[in-house]
Amino acid sequence: MNQRIYLDHAATTPVDPRVVAAMLPCWTEHWGNPSSIYEEGQDARKTLDMARRQVADVLGADPDEIVFTAGGSEADNFALRGVAEALRGTANHIVTTAIEHHAVLHACERLAQDGFEVTFLPVDGEGFVTPDQVAAAVTERTALVSVMYANNEVGTVEPIADITRAVKAKNSRTLVHTDAVQAAGALDLNVQRLGVDLLSLAAHKIYGPKGTGVLYLRAGAPFRPQLLGGSQERDRRAGTENVAGAVGMATALRLATDEFEERTAHSRALRDLLLREVPRRIPYTHVNGPQDPARRLANNASFCFEFIEGEALLLLLDLNGIAASSGSACTSGSLEPSHVLSAMGVPPEIARSSLRLSVGRSNTQEQIERLLELLPAFVERLRALSPLSPAVPSTDALATGTS
Amino acid sequence: MNQRIYLDHAATTPVDPRVVAAMLPCWTEHWGNPSSIYEEGQDARKTLDMARRQVADVLGADPDEIVFTAGGSEADNFALRGVAEALRGTANHIVTTAIEHHAVLHACERLAQDGFEVTFLPVDGEGFVTPDQVAAAVTERTALVSVMYANNEVGTVEPIADITRAVKAKNSRTLVHTDAVQAAGALDLNVQRLGVDLLSLAAHKIYGPKGTGVLYLRAGAPFRPQLLGGSQERDRRAGTENVAGAVGMATALRLATDEFEERTAHSRALRDLLLREVPRRIPYTHVNGPQDPARRLANNASFCFEFIEGEALLLLLDLNGIAASSGSACTSGSLEPSHVLSAMGVPPEIARSSLRLSVGRSNTQEQIERLLELLPAFVERLRALSPLSPAVPSTDALATGTS
Repeated sequence: MNQRIYLDHAATTPVDPRVVAAMLPCWTEHWGNPSSIYEEGQDARKTLDMARRQVADVLGADPDEIVFTAGGSEADNFALRGVAEALRGTANHIVTTAIEHHAVLHACERLAQDGFEVTFLPVDGEGFVTPDQVAAAVTERTALVSVMYANNEVGTVEPIADITRAVKAKNSRTLVHTDAVQAAGALDLNVQRLGVDLLSLAAHKIYGPKGTGVLYLRAGAPFRPQLLGGSQERDRRAGTENVAGAVGMATALRLATDEFEERTAHSRALRDLLLREVPRRIPYTHVNGPQDPARRLANNASFCFEFIEGEALLLLLDLNGIAASSGSACTSGSLEPSHVLSAMGVPPEIARSSLRLSVGRSNTQEQIERLLELLPAFVERLRALSPLSPAVPSTDALATGTS
Repeated sequence: MNQRIYLDHAATTPVDPRVVAAMLPCWTEHWGNPSSIYEEGQDARKTLDMARRQVADVLGADPDEIVFTAGGSEADNFALRGVAEALRGTANHIVTTAIEHHAVLHACERLAQDGFEVTFLPVDGEGFVTPDQVAAAVTERTALVSVMYANNEVGTVEPIADITRAVKAKNSRTLVHTDAVQAAGALDLNVQRLGVDLLSLAAHKIYGPKGTGVLYLRAGAPFRPQLLGGSQERDRRAGTENVAGAVGMATALRLATDEFEERTAHSRALRDLLLREVPRRIPYTHVNGPQDPARRLANNASFCFEFIEGEALLLLLDLNGIAASSGSACTSGSLEPSHVLSAMGVPPEIARSSLRLSVGRSNTQEQIERLLELLPAFVERLRALSPLSPAVPSTDALATGTS
């Protein structure tokens, strides 16, 4: 019996034992309420402050600019709504892209319902927007631009620093937010170099705990708080602070930063093997997202296999010990084709055959080779069942071919 | 050197080792994304479902009616805003009380800014509202009534079941929410008996982790989701589920329910000692909240000591190993007198002398006796420094008196 092969690190990751070890004392020793003035409270406050400083250091930010949240979706929602509502009246236009995570897209749709004007920018066939394109959409009344740093489904890395520069050149008062949930641990998160005013992170994508994230909020940025009550997080998010969660987030982020080189080299090697071998071994395969591996997330490989249903492939893989997804975990079970692939111009019948393989620390070359052994046969089997399939050459024939 | 004496269990509690033990496997074994269709995801889903069922069982609710949140403040905010925004246009009136937690009060003030009409009901000198009083405020256009189950500062237990009945008799379409954050583990949480449509809980008040809570949302209740993105929590709260947090919440709630009798008996005995002895040993002392101990939270004792500043007393106590608060931890450091005491008619100069002692599982009779030894001398010392003090009899004289 083979061990399970987990190839969905973009969906979530196990918590690093070092992160668990860092969180444990927060429940049993430093468990006070950080708002309390006595010893137990101040001890918890110190623990929280240390976590905040660690996050700030990674982002090149001031600790006061770090708002701990309950995750990436909250950070995205509050970023969008917080800025939009703060500027309602003076600037009620928002610019975003068609391939954002639903936490951004649906928040934008809600704002549109509530009277804001929202521009959803199209992307090219690889998922890119250009700085010029974004800047062209910015007007005198644009409150906020929100462009994700790296796409969760197809791995496209957007040129955020250039986008920010172009936006600010067009309207210096327009704020820029980036959803960096997938970028964490894989790309430069320095907010000075990126130039962004707001940035979202989630711990559970980088071997931290679920239920905790960060909203970077540049000092002075207009923001209407969305969770009201106590004055926690400098009046920007009420509620007793999740000290353990903050420590988990900070520890995971610090480890991802410290081990950046080895982790990305490891991911890139396995990912490159997938990008090279999958299309070579399986005919009628499309690589989704940037064809240049340097312009996509180091751990992301995404494919469409014509003539099959992606969900059926996922089930076959799962039965054979391999965990993978069609795209975002957040939309699993949906019968709609991916909004990301659709925006990139992939026809629905092909988009429905998508497979996202996102590698991580647990993966080995042997595991990838095992996948490469199994996958062609699975695709072939599903194609044999499909009334849509043309007479495709057998993968065995191909595997022994000269390509 | 004496051990610390923690008398602020209403602010937060240490996490029960059994709760930590229940959470641990969620990070290392059941760490999948519950939205993923493969084995790791379904395993996490099962863990989450089990936690949901445990919470539902305690509340007498259906598991589908349980929404896991990032804490009590989120549950309160989303309850208020979720219902109000869902009914905007047809019913834009909200009724609440002047002594709610700020998570409710500030959410109501925000809704008032955003065009809703809000009635803040006054309370009597013990912090009570009456069912008739609440019902009288309900109109044809009242969307929601929000009355807290037990007050966090003075322990007043509101007659929620009677309030709900009176509200529904007046307008059967009006929903009722109760903030039960302090009631958990101390009062009946059965939503059928209470009749409420929404109810908020926080784990960290009952020896569970910070950063996790519950919003009970009755099936069919109008609700506009406040966190958008994925379809988690049946489309009522987006974001990858905090499985460990949910398990922590559920375990803490189950333990509080299983051990209800012994915990409340323990608390009540210590609390009764405080309620009896503090006013007997310290002159010019007022007991805040219900004078009948049966009508206040079993673990709450709250006092005002004329002629002193509460903050100074807290510092003295802390220096002597005792953790206590003036009122809510969420407003520590604020120079404003408590809004709860003010609403109860306590003059500001007296309200500023408040001391809340909330007992819990770690406390012993010896600890309470130690407090009772120290407190009179501390109050006396502060009064001696106060220009406001009259010539008060010495506490030694009182302690040996005949009262």
